[in-house]
Amino acid sequence: MLKARIFVQLKPSVLDPQGKAVTNSLHSLGYTSVTDTRVSKYIEMNLCETDEAKAAEIVNSICDKLLANPNTEHYEYSIEKVGD
Amino acid sequence: MLKARIFVQLKPSVLDPQGKAVTNSLHSLGYTSVTDTRVSKYIEMNLCETDEAKAAEIVNSICDKLLANPNTEHYEYSIEKVGD
Repeated sequence: MLKARIFVQLKPSVLDPQGKAVTNSLHSLGYTSVTDTRVSKYIEMNLCETDEAKAAEIVNSICDKLLANPNTEHYEYSIEKVGD
Repeated sequence: MLKARIFVQLKPSVLDPQGKAVTNSLHSLGYTSVTDTRVSKYIEMNLCETDEAKAAEIVNSICDKLLANPNTEHYEYSIEKVGD
């Protein structure tokens, strides 16, 4: 069994309204030392595969086809063995 | 300047409908080796602080008060120096 840890983040040039809202809320709550916040998706995925190279190929394809919007987001991932 | 990397995840005992939907979509697309998916939030936050202990205290407080739902979610974070 392999576990993929996938980060899907907005590209740095893309405005993050959710992050901006969090920053504004934090300023309202008195946390004035927070200057910038970016909110992203983090996805953990188990795969019934033993070959890490094959799993990487699958995860790449999954990110391209389903998880990330190529216009506004980029992704990165790592793959590790878990359990047996 | 310090950067906090915060993970807010559903507790393992809590059903993740978004993750379940992703798994089902992937099966429909032919990715049958994916057995389980959990979707979480990943937040990067810059803080104008120099003291890591103080920053950790602030981030803890922010997670408790705004970012995580203590009933269903848990969080973890790391803090590192960036830039000057």
